[in-house]
Amino acid sequence: MSIHSAPVANLISELSKLPGIGQKTAQRLAFHLIGRPEGEVSLLAGALMEAKQKTVLCEVCCDVAESSPCAICDSDRGRDLICVVENPKDVAAIERTNEYRGRYHVLHGSISPLKNIGPGDIRIKELIGRLSDEEVKEVILATNPNIEGEATAIYISRLIKPLGVMTTRIAHGLPVGADIEYADNVTLAKSIEGRREI
Amino acid sequence: MSIHSAPVANLISELSKLPGIGQKTAQRLAFHLIGRPEGEVSLLAGALMEAKQKTVLCEVCCDVAESSPCAICDSDRGRDLICVVENPKDVAAIERTNEYRGRYHVLHGSISPLKNIGPGDIRIKELIGRLSDEEVKEVILATNPNIEGEATAIYISRLIKPLGVMTTRIAHGLPVGADIEYADNVTLAKSIEGRREI
Repeated sequence: MSIHSAPVANLISELSKLPGIGQKTAQRLAFHLIGRPEGEVSLLAGALMEAKQKTVLCEVCCDVAESSPCAICDSDRGRDLICVVENPKDVAAIERTNEYRGRYHVLHGSISPLKNIGPGDIRIKELIGRLSDEEVKEVILATNPNIEGEATAIYISRLIKPLGVMTTRIAHGLPVGADIEYADNVTLAKSIEGRREI
Repeated sequence: MSIHSAPVANLISELSKLPGIGQKTAQRLAFHLIGRPEGEVSLLAGALMEAKQKTVLCEVCCDVAESSPCAICDSDRGRDLICVVENPKDVAAIERTNEYRGRYHVLHGSISPLKNIGPGDIRIKELIGRLSDEEVKEVILATNPNIEGEATAIYISRLIKPLGVMTTRIAHGLPVGADIEYADNVTLAKSIEGRREI
């Protein structure tokens, strides 16, 4: 589009490559940024480059971290428990609960034939490698509760079972604060199936 | 939050300063960017700095442009007609219609007592200055059709009237493709009020 001057059009085009940012939002963000002081824009540009340059994937758990091994893998947290998640932000979400004291393994995706992502495209091999360490007693499969996440969990559990390590899946059920009346059938059924004695 | 490593936390914090980008979206964008090749991230960082450094406000119309005066102010487009808009993206929207052949004036906002923005905070003074050029015959007030935009249009028209320049307001009415049954009362009333002979 020749409507915007070249630097503006270029910024809009770069911003609209981001996930969930369409043409209109990119334009709004671009003009917002152009209207800010140069120092503020340069803080963002610097943060972008620094986040990319100063982070690595932990060679143990594959999480995004400042060092490899990452702070958690280098800590004295329980080596007997590995929680497998799809993405780094899932690690952040579980850490925020302040309930989990084991280690992590980040797959960087889930098996999805529709998106042409097979078991070899996510970090399952690295997980299996970690299980040769005899300290690991249990692998918690905390992939997302959707079709891809379930398939990934089932695939991994089949790989791990022969190694004699226990695999568990996070519980399905009603979220806290939910209303049974409005719960979907599948969740409600899973919630009854997974009932526990109180 | 100590959950993310420092460069990641810093990027999330910078991204969440953008309008309409909350904590969750900032986190999603940050991890997306960290997962991209460095060249791609540096394209975005470069586009940010370039858009800021290589653009200026046109000293005539106050639009964001690569040079001052901007391409439109420097062209031979009709000097007798100025279209007043709130933001640079409104110029882009009107240019996209390919119908308008006059010049522009960008106010960079609208009068809004609630947001503590008075007439002195937007570029009204610069507009009045342009009217001393006797070629200007008409000023089209194309501020947004909301309370702030209406107030701004009325304020400007009162300033301009004594100068003997015609001021017009863009038409209110039903958008093309709309359904009368579902139109709101105010729009429908304005649409009847503004009826034209065919």
